[in-house]
Amino acid sequence: MADVLEQDQTHHTLQEVNKALENGMFVHVRRLLQDMEPEDIAHLLEASPPKERQVLWQLTDPEEQGEILDELSEDVKDGIVSQMEPEKLAAVTEGMESDDVAYVLRSLSDERYQEVLAQMDATDRHRIETALAYPEDTAGGMMSTDFITIRGDVTADVVLRYLRMRGELPEATDSLYVVDDNQVLIGHLSLSTLITTQPDIEIKDVMQDADEAIAVDMADSEIANIFERRNWLSAPVVDANNHLLGRITIDDVVDLIREEAEHSMMTMAGMDDDEDTFAPVLKSAKSRSIWLGVNVLTALAAASVSNMFEHTLQQMATVAVLMTIVPSMGGVAGNQTVALVIRGLAVGHIGDTNTRWLLSKEARVGLINGLVWALIIGVVVFVWKGSLMLGAIMAGAMLANLFIAGVAGVLIPIGLKKLKIDPALAGGMALTTCTDIVGLMVFLGLATIFITP
Amino acid sequence: MADVLEQDQTHHTLQEVNKALENGMFVHVRRLLQDMEPEDIAHLLEASPPKERQVLWQLTDPEEQGEILDELSEDVKDGIVSQMEPEKLAAVTEGMESDDVAYVLRSLSDERYQEVLAQMDATDRHRIETALAYPEDTAGGMMSTDFITIRGDVTADVVLRYLRMRGELPEATDSLYVVDDNQVLIGHLSLSTLITTQPDIEIKDVMQDADEAIAVDMADSEIANIFERRNWLSAPVVDANNHLLGRITIDDVVDLIREEAEHSMMTMAGMDDDEDTFAPVLKSAKSRSIWLGVNVLTALAAASVSNMFEHTLQQMATVAVLMTIVPSMGGVAGNQTVALVIRGLAVGHIGDTNTRWLLSKEARVGLINGLVWALIIGVVVFVWKGSLMLGAIMAGAMLANLFIAGVAGVLIPIGLKKLKIDPALAGGMALTTCTDIVGLMVFLGLATIFITP
Repeated sequence: MADVLEQDQTHHTLQEVNKALENGMFVHVRRLLQDMEPEDIAHLLEASPPKERQVLWQLTDPEEQGEILDELSEDVKDGIVSQMEPEKLAAVTEGMESDDVAYVLRSLSDERYQEVLAQMDATDRHRIETALAYPEDTAGGMMSTDFITIRGDVTADVVLRYLRMRGELPEATDSLYVVDDNQVLIGHLSLSTLITTQPDIEIKDVMQDADEAIAVDMADSEIANIFERRNWLSAPVVDANNHLLGRITIDDVVDLIREEAEHSMMTMAGMDDDEDTFAPVLKSAKSRSIWLGVNVLTALAAASVSNMFEHTLQQMATVAVLMTIVPSMGGVAGNQTVALVIRGLAVGHIGDTNTRWLLSKEARVGLINGLVWALIIGVVVFVWKGSLMLGAIMAGAMLANLFIAGVAGVLIPIGLKKLKIDPALAGGMALTTCTDIVGLMVFLGLATIFITP
Repeated sequence: MADVLEQDQTHHTLQEVNKALENGMFVHVRRLLQDMEPEDIAHLLEASPPKERQVLWQLTDPEEQGEILDELSEDVKDGIVSQMEPEKLAAVTEGMESDDVAYVLRSLSDERYQEVLAQMDATDRHRIETALAYPEDTAGGMMSTDFITIRGDVTADVVLRYLRMRGELPEATDSLYVVDDNQVLIGHLSLSTLITTQPDIEIKDVMQDADEAIAVDMADSEIANIFERRNWLSAPVVDANNHLLGRITIDDVVDLIREEAEHSMMTMAGMDDDEDTFAPVLKSAKSRSIWLGVNVLTALAAASVSNMFEHTLQQMATVAVLMTIVPSMGGVAGNQTVALVIRGLAVGHIGDTNTRWLLSKEARVGLINGLVWALIIGVVVFVWKGSLMLGAIMAGAMLANLFIAGVAGVLIPIGLKKLKIDPALAGGMALTTCTDIVGLMVFLGLATIFITP
């Protein structure tokens, strides 16, 4: 009888393994690990602090280490691989699909990589070198070379008998590819069509030939969008002359989709999207420092704007008390727009045809919310500080800054993308700099003109 | 010969359709739409401003409208569905899988929903009502009831002949489910096993019975994690007594993974994750207003902290000029940690076993970066303003705030999760409030004690 999964069971295993580790019961841990799937062990490693991670890795079954490495995220995988002997690496990756081996070995230095290759037999070496020749973020870098090709002029029955003789199909096979003598892709035949077809019918009469193949140099983000939109389970990869080179399967695309979406979220917050949650302290501190350095410049730029108005601040401390409100609201409103535009760019909804419409929309949203909050904050400041003029100045600055925030929120990410700079990486910081400076300028400028004697 | 996809072709189609629309060539647009897949039409609709969207929808083939609706994101889909007649809705959803119909109809008011149901035949009505009885964000709400069951005591050959007689398999079928007389799930048989098995072997001897089934009330985020980790293409859904109820397929899970990851990114920026990029202005302004309202309170709280030190600000305008730097750095550093923790919570890497380790790590990262930036900003302020005391105060406040930011960055999202509040929604704002207030308090407090006469 099948186990019913009430919820993700790994939480419990995690706790049990951790308790056993704490008590030094290594034999028990090894037994627990033996009962786990490689992907669950990978999850456990990802969720463990460095020291525990190292101990756990020593206790895993060497037979499974290759597959575990393949399931780990890049940062964690690289940490383990960097400490493994070349012979060991060659041994654990033996028999794995070429795209998975390429993932495991990609971070090695050229010297160590050559040492690993030297340990493999000629066929494996050739397969891996071919896989690694393609850039990681293209179809070539993602594809597996493990697939089944058939001819179009045979019957379904012949194919079925061939497959039965051949035995187990490559993992995640949902289609067979129909090629001609020159390995040119002609069409594909899904397993479900093969199964429901009468035995005496020829493949070319039932195969789907309108299906689209992926070019070997297609970027991975395009691949993710296509798979997602078309609900594909797998797709053939071809060169410019339509020669079949490999196959991309949904499981790799799922990882990609997760990574892409995480990329936006993490880089918008100024983090490396590969950052291991349980990385060593110094490594984390260093990787985050860059972003803090950029922000120091932003904060100093804002401070030098205030500095221009030092005389005003000297005259009236209340202006200083209130001056942070407008930049703060502009930052929040602008970042809402930035997030919307970054998502729209990522999924391909925003392009030349609709940028102008979007700009006008966000400008109007900024104006409307600017009016609403200008009114509210104007009244609050009037009541709090008893100055109608101060309330009015606050309201004016708020309106101006939220309008600018809407416009900049569209223009900055789209402009960055045109300059081939990742909008998720630089968009939020550029926007905040813009709204900080504009907000302070307008508020302190108006206060200088209208209030101070 | 297969088409080679150099890149996502929809960009070009989008431009062509838009040009035709602008020129009022509706017949041409209709023809272009007829050549497109439903999912590509959905993409086109998502990428169009409201007016164009409405025109385009009128030009789509009614035969395809059901499938197009199913491919649309929630906000866009709801906008179209709300304007359709009940008869029309019943007609376009006819023949669709029950989980897809449930998605299309879920947003209807009870009254309109009853009207749509009244237009369906009894079988369809029953199927849809069953599907809608499960909460949307559980296995029951996601599953399709379209699957194939077989018995364990028949041979592979019998199954193959049965399938051939039956004809086309339900979409995305990669496995057949083996059940007993009471529809209790016993195991499953993948199509690739069925194909490679000798014809005279009984199903129960080759089926996989160790496979796990998903409980009908499992939360969708758990389902996404399991599918992703196990590389599943589909999984059976069962009730507490192991009765087979339905099947979840990877294409729905892919959408879910994208939505979940987008959810974190969008809500962290204070946006509704369903927000249509091309929503009408007023609707957008309203949905974003809530977040701006929360931020007004945050900004006012920070201002009232400064207000407590009005006397100090009055004495020394330089303090006012510099007072925004420390809160800004604390906000950036804290939000880095918040992003890391939110991702870790979402993928299930952070739990009771490692929270303490993570807290100590982030506190130490905060201390190290606090020291680095305290030193740098202290020197900058000393050089800029010529006051060693002011530099030292700045450095002290920076160190304290980055340390607090690291600690709060871990505790706030984990605490929110314990309180069953979405950490992505409230985490960033709560963190910024905390670092703003602490940063201002410490900096202005130290300045008051050590500088002003």
